[in-house]
Amino acid sequence: MDLTGIYHRPESEYAFITGKDTMSIRLRTVKDDIESVELVAGDPYAIRSLNSKWFNRKIPMKKGLSTDLYDYWTVSITEPKHRLAYGFFITDQKGQQVLYNDQGFQFNYDENYLAQENNYFRMPFFQQIDMFNAPEWVKNTVWYQIFPERFANGDPTINPKGTKEWDSTIHPGRQDFYGGDLQGVIDHLDHLVDLGVNGIYFNPIFKAPSNHKYDTEDYFEIDPHFGNKELFKKLVSEAHKRNIKVMLDAVFNHIGDQSPQWQDVLQHGKDSQYADWFHINGFPVHYTPTDNFEFAADANYETFDYTPHMPKLNTTNKEVQDYLLSIATYWIKEFDIDAWRLDVANEIDHHFWREFHDATTALKPDFYILGEIWHTAQPWLQGDQFTGVMNYAYIEAIKEHFIEHVTTATEMKNNLNRQLMLYNDAADRMMFNVLDSHDTARIKTLAHDDMDLVKQIFGFTFIQPGTPSIYYGTEYGMTGENDPDDRKPMVWNEKLQDHDFYAFMQKLIKVRKQIVKYLDVQQLNWSEIDDELGFMKLNYGNLEARFNTGVAEINSPIENAEILIENGYQDEILNPKGFAIYIKK
Amino acid sequence: MDLTGIYHRPESEYAFITGKDTMSIRLRTVKDDIESVELVAGDPYAIRSLNSKWFNRKIPMKKGLSTDLYDYWTVSITEPKHRLAYGFFITDQKGQQVLYNDQGFQFNYDENYLAQENNYFRMPFFQQIDMFNAPEWVKNTVWYQIFPERFANGDPTINPKGTKEWDSTIHPGRQDFYGGDLQGVIDHLDHLVDLGVNGIYFNPIFKAPSNHKYDTEDYFEIDPHFGNKELFKKLVSEAHKRNIKVMLDAVFNHIGDQSPQWQDVLQHGKDSQYADWFHINGFPVHYTPTDNFEFAADANYETFDYTPHMPKLNTTNKEVQDYLLSIATYWIKEFDIDAWRLDVANEIDHHFWREFHDATTALKPDFYILGEIWHTAQPWLQGDQFTGVMNYAYIEAIKEHFIEHVTTATEMKNNLNRQLMLYNDAADRMMFNVLDSHDTARIKTLAHDDMDLVKQIFGFTFIQPGTPSIYYGTEYGMTGENDPDDRKPMVWNEKLQDHDFYAFMQKLIKVRKQIVKYLDVQQLNWSEIDDELGFMKLNYGNLEARFNTGVAEINSPIENAEILIENGYQDEILNPKGFAIYIKK
Repeated sequence: MDLTGIYHRPESEYAFITGKDTMSIRLRTVKDDIESVELVAGDPYAIRSLNSKWFNRKIPMKKGLSTDLYDYWTVSITEPKHRLAYGFFITDQKGQQVLYNDQGFQFNYDENYLAQENNYFRMPFFQQIDMFNAPEWVKNTVWYQIFPERFANGDPTINPKGTKEWDSTIHPGRQDFYGGDLQGVIDHLDHLVDLGVNGIYFNPIFKAPSNHKYDTEDYFEIDPHFGNKELFKKLVSEAHKRNIKVMLDAVFNHIGDQSPQWQDVLQHGKDSQYADWFHINGFPVHYTPTDNFEFAADANYETFDYTPHMPKLNTTNKEVQDYLLSIATYWIKEFDIDAWRLDVANEIDHHFWREFHDATTALKPDFYILGEIWHTAQPWLQGDQFTGVMNYAYIEAIKEHFIEHVTTATEMKNNLNRQLMLYNDAADRMMFNVLDSHDTARIKTLAHDDMDLVKQIFGFTFIQPGTPSIYYGTEYGMTGENDPDDRKPMVWNEKLQDHDFYAFMQKLIKVRKQIVKYLDVQQLNWSEIDDELGFMKLNYGNLEARFNTGVAEINSPIENAEILIENGYQDEILNPKGFAIYIKK
Repeated sequence: MDLTGIYHRPESEYAFITGKDTMSIRLRTVKDDIESVELVAGDPYAIRSLNSKWFNRKIPMKKGLSTDLYDYWTVSITEPKHRLAYGFFITDQKGQQVLYNDQGFQFNYDENYLAQENNYFRMPFFQQIDMFNAPEWVKNTVWYQIFPERFANGDPTINPKGTKEWDSTIHPGRQDFYGGDLQGVIDHLDHLVDLGVNGIYFNPIFKAPSNHKYDTEDYFEIDPHFGNKELFKKLVSEAHKRNIKVMLDAVFNHIGDQSPQWQDVLQHGKDSQYADWFHINGFPVHYTPTDNFEFAADANYETFDYTPHMPKLNTTNKEVQDYLLSIATYWIKEFDIDAWRLDVANEIDHHFWREFHDATTALKPDFYILGEIWHTAQPWLQGDQFTGVMNYAYIEAIKEHFIEHVTTATEMKNNLNRQLMLYNDAADRMMFNVLDSHDTARIKTLAHDDMDLVKQIFGFTFIQPGTPSIYYGTEYGMTGENDPDDRKPMVWNEKLQDHDFYAFMQKLIKVRKQIVKYLDVQQLNWSEIDDELGFMKLNYGNLEARFNTGVAEINSPIENAEILIENGYQDEILNPKGFAIYIKK
């Protein structure tokens, strides 16, 4: 038996409560080494106080997802006393057995040893206040990301100076303005309803000099070129009438250098009342400008990246904490927003995020807190901080296979499973799956304008556990290279819209809402992968899907099933770039 | 190369900051499989913004502690921008190389791959507010545990009814009273000074019916049989004058059933203002008494264990939180205590402990928070909750070898290293190492009255990284079986005291204070173990120690060294049960 690869960690993604007296437990073992795993579990006090011998009762664990290196075993259990001692009886392919518990691996033990409650792993008490909360509405949401300056110009009277003509075919410059605003969003809410999405993720809308608004000047004001608070209130209200949730972008890691706080530091130096709001290494604050507006090598204060115009906020300062929390709660209390997306969330301290979590969920228990984190996000997804993160690594693994063809289907599956196993099952459902965004080239461009491929990758993304998001204009086949080319004005000219793809996305979104109840991580099963052919079949119970990522037609009859959506499947043949999602009868 | 056993986890005991721009990083590999590990690390933004190629600079990691299954590699680094991307270049004994990063294991990669900052593990920003804080004074403390009812009777006028005569040779009954009190402690503070200890850990002193006081009636009152608040204030003040710290025992998991809160629930049922202070499954609350005062199988409310007289508090209720936090801060603000020991700490939610941490350290930044946790305590030792835990598993591993002889020295070493590697280096220094306590048989009794063995195990415990604690009376050779026999009245009769052992403990405590600066986990080295002989040598740099746990004399000359303390070492011979601690010149 390969002991060294066996892993469990109490109170983590390997052991998490799911309700008052229920919890799920995972165990990792070395790929194909272990034949069976049985959980032994019970109330630790019952052994002595009730003379219980629960340690002789073995609960089989299910072999779940696998990667190239590991198998993951899983079980969900109920314990009425909601306090648990547990261990694992592991049997390998050759019949060798071991007990794995809080003391390590045990080969020799007797009943007396089993009766020692302190030898076991523990979930000492199922604390619902510490539980990871996955709001039901998030599971059911298909997001739509709006970059407000480029979505629609509904009120030309508030256009910024030098606003350019709306043209969806143009390649925008880094400093251009096109006059997109909140009225434009309100005007097109019914477009979103028609498409079927039910959550808007807005890039920043607060007062800021740039077109992207990540250099906040005032977190308490709507940017005047976007509108005003009355209008935003109306927008949220109209969205809610249409069952559309609203998520705003909170840029709390840094503030714009035009903000009154930073301006005060510039003016008063170390005597500024805001001197401790930042991380300043010397006064007066300074940097040497370069040809690149967003770069200085020598700023004597901490910034985002090396961007002198984005001084980093000191979130360990109580005043800064109170200020940012007052912003976080203001837009919930006064405008009824449903979610915050947190920019550069990983560079702010956990202490602050815990306060943020408590302050926002106190107002709305089902508030969604989405962190921008590009790497493993375990430290933020234990229940006390975020509800989900931007799932970049997951989507990258999908693109590597479907678009770049640098991985086989098996390798992709391994990468996806590895990502899923980083988090608890509930967190996996809360991940924000974006194929493209304001920070990346558009998916159609990445797919070399191959709409079959785009349809296939969307089909695959929509049967993943995380919640999908569509970047504005994708539904009409917009293209764009990396930032700023990915921020073209929205295509409202019907002649330039891809109506076939729009109909596809409408249908896919409808299917997503229909199948969301199936998408439990514990049910996910990669039932067939043929890397030679480029064929992949996966299912969650009766929900099944097939994909052809190879270059040849595949004879693959779908029988006794209701096909929910397909592209490139006919006469029992699945074409290259084809897929089908169906329910088995 | 055995990949499956290689493990790293960002922001955990494997990656923790140690200062504004310093952090330590660990990697686990399979025992004896890996030849070398090099860290690759740098500011993630420097790659694009400064065109830095830090990913070509390799920093060697040191092979540190090992267990039966694993080797642990370690390195401490400085990063002036205090934000870090990092990975591991791992080379096995056969020369095979792999890069291990946030994406898993990479065998094929080029410079372009290395230049992608999102492929690396991350410490996004070195947040001092999230850092594990290890107070310097705790490192330098030798604790002395006082069970107040049995330490000394300084004021017979407040004896409980039926107080028995002070007799250190008696076997106390479970409900007996002997009149120990706070005046008794004050009277004997100079005894503690003479012994050399510099921290008192008090079992509960708040008003409660039992002799052990774990069934608190009023957390804001000193038990009247122990004294009053004036006296306790004097005690703390007198202790502080003698550089002795004071730790109290907080029993926050449950409250005594004589408390006004529970009495109110008994009286008013679901209409009680305290009904939600507890976990009550039905009204009226009830249980069926049994012959055992501390047991009822059918209480319809949650209790500690199955003890009907200790109803569990609902720490998710804001009023309960405020109440308990007001207690926690009251005894710091008004009486200047230095530490809380938290009873049954694992069964209270993390949310509460984080508030507890913030409230207490706001008053005293170097406050010591010690949790009673018998199992792996990782979830509480990340910096946001506790400073240390009762280190039962660690001490048990020591006893298994030294006293019970059920493990070899190598097995003990593996067990100890496994425990040390569960926590970050700073936390390992904060662990509370008790050889015995009010909950266990006394160490002398466990050692079958063999004082050489007792000396040896104390010698070994005192060169461990965690802080040692001495149970009252141990210094005079007191004996006792399990609870309640381990709670005999203190031996103040000089004729009954073991003066030889007292002198030994005096010296050992002095040595501990002298060597504490050496006891870094990163420096610990088990330099020689001979399981046949029962010989063990370990060192931290120049501080070295030898132990004979076998049955034969061992010729083991200690040369070029200053012997700090020994027992059973003479003429270059280390006797069975002998040891020596010395500094190499």
